Amino acid sequence: MSSDKVMLAHGSGGRLTYELVRDVFLKHLHSPLLRLMDDSAIWSFALDPNARLAVTTDSYVVSPIFFPGGDIGKLAVCGTINDLAMVGAEPLMITAGFILEEGLPLEDLERVISSMADTARKAGVAVVAGDTKVVERGKADGLFINTTGVGLVREGLNLSGANARPGDAVLVSGTIGEHGLAVLSVREGLEFSLPLVSDCALLNGLVQEILATKGQIRCLRDPTRGGLATTLNEIAIQSGVGIEVEETAIPISDGIRAACELLGLDPLYAACEGRLVAVVSPESEEAVLEALQRHPLGRNAAKIGHVTDGPTRKVVLRTPYGGCRLLDMLSGAQLPRIC
Amino acid sequence: MSSDKVMLAHGSGGRLTYELVRDVFLKHLHSPLLRLMDDSAIWSFALDPNARLAVTTDSYVVSPIFFPGGDIGKLAVCGTINDLAMVGAEPLMITAGFILEEGLPLEDLERVISSMADTARKAGVAVVAGDTKVVERGKADGLFINTTGVGLVREGLNLSGANARPGDAVLVSGTIGEHGLAVLSVREGLEFSLPLVSDCALLNGLVQEILATKGQIRCLRDPTRGGLATTLNEIAIQSGVGIEVEETAIPISDGIRAACELLGLDPLYAACEGRLVAVVSPESEEAVLEALQRHPLGRNAAKIGHVTDGPTRKVVLRTPYGGCRLLDMLSGAQLPRIC
Repeated sequence: MSSDKVMLAHGSGGRLTYELVRDVFLKHLHSPLLRLMDDSAIWSFALDPNARLAVTTDSYVVSPIFFPGGDIGKLAVCGTINDLAMVGAEPLMITAGFILEEGLPLEDLERVISSMADTARKAGVAVVAGDTKVVERGKADGLFINTTGVGLVREGLNLSGANARPGDAVLVSGTIGEHGLAVLSVREGLEFSLPLVSDCALLNGLVQEILATKGQIRCLRDPTRGGLATTLNEIAIQSGVGIEVEETAIPISDGIRAACELLGLDPLYAACEGRLVAVVSPESEEAVLEALQRHPLGRNAAKIGHVTDGPTRKVVLRTPYGGCRLLDMLSGAQLPRIC
Repeated sequence: MSSDKVMLAHGSGGRLTYELVRDVFLKHLHSPLLRLMDDSAIWSFALDPNARLAVTTDSYVVSPIFFPGGDIGKLAVCGTINDLAMVGAEPLMITAGFILEEGLPLEDLERVISSMADTARKAGVAVVAGDTKVVERGKADGLFINTTGVGLVREGLNLSGANARPGDAVLVSGTIGEHGLAVLSVREGLEFSLPLVSDCALLNGLVQEILATKGQIRCLRDPTRGGLATTLNEIAIQSGVGIEVEETAIPISDGIRAACELLGLDPLYAACEGRLVAVVSPESEEAVLEALQRHPLGRNAAKIGHVTDGPTRKVVLRTPYGGCRLLDMLSGAQLPRIC
């Protein structure tokens, strides 16, 4: 009853599930905790009673599952580790839940699992628990992955979208929109003169560098779905402040600019998966920007604007011609299924 | 742009996602942590440094999403709380990741969320983080939910499928197979003279009663996918022991027995979602069985067999006629998508 494709019986909880877990999942994701195969994994290390637990969850439905610069497995680890990093948490562990479509080539599944394992190793995090379900052909799309991350935030650290104050500087760690456009280009079979590659990357190392500056960092956030514009709006709403950004200061690569012009897309709404927005006090702005630029993932970091006390909860974009326009949250669905 | 159905834009990360989260998710799942809407939720309560963290994840793809005795929302909370309970963990929090199919009626979504919220309240657990993705019509099936649970195991408690020893008693907390047959009956539009209702329930209260006996409990496990037979096999494999069960001692309701006979299904492989198997030392057998039977969810609890030292890693079923047969793990897919 062997097969090179996922079958419904792989999700039955019986022998084939057991074999799939043993031969594919555990082969790559070998964590001592996962090996026990009990109903819950137990983390036996002593917990710092002063640290606080951070928890985040994300499901990944990116289409296609392989794209320039990554795949759904790498993305599922980076995205969740990055959400932990955005509150300053050191990742402890992640869980992985798979929903597989009947007929998915086992080779594709193994490639994705191997990529997850590789990314988890780089992040220094163990995959401690997993689950696999299979649905009939046509009831899912290849595979979907949920990852949930648990991390620890050290005492005294308080990063939140609600902390921005008028006068704070708004920084971005690199060029924007690469992930969204890379996924779109391969999904639609578009070719551009400049290759589009996803920026999908682990940000926990970069965040450690920023935190090491001891600067007054109010908020970190990664501009994924909805892009930079939506992220800035979320911060403005959460903090009850205004944000003003300079259009010319926003780092955008020539390739992304050209692709967006051709497709009629606005790069400010295109997703990143390896960039962060940092809101920092004016005194700490220089040190944090330098720390970002010293790191390979922050080479193109820039100050793009500042927090204002009016109009509150709005984001204003200053154009190169001296005008300004209101930058709203993404409305509608510019690029569906990019993560 | 309002609608009574889920649209792709609800998953874009922009305004409609924000409104969906605010108007549907937060309306029911109001946790102070979820309200902050940062990238990770932070659990600010002091952690007992002697306790250990337990983590478990499950995706739910049950079809149909509403069934007698429950729905995918109730199931998604019970299943994950139960997996924590099986290692003796007190649940702290759960996360919820939703994958929605374009076109899902918002009314159905709200009914599911409300059911999740209700079940989480009963379990005494907060939903601290969430995520919503939307895929095109025909790329999923209504909605899928992943829940991940985090709990604490108190010092000294060690329940594991690897702990069973020859001589231990094997108990089950109630009649088996209700969940699998209830889902199957509504999916296939079958009507039986005795109504089939899922046993879907929270087991953390029942587990507390068992643990309060201070008995020597080796292992708890809930026989979900693959049913009782598969669960017993998993324990036999993990512990390297044999298990012998008496067919006549296994509690099966008349309704399930009749439905299984009609459909040619074996109730030993049909899923439960509110039952547990307990392996306990011979000295503790009586006290644990009494504790089970005192609880409303354990009224039909019974001793069904014992752990043997041979043949190891095998489960043997003694039939009423004095014979015996090898009870293997489920092979193939008896009942797909029952959780």
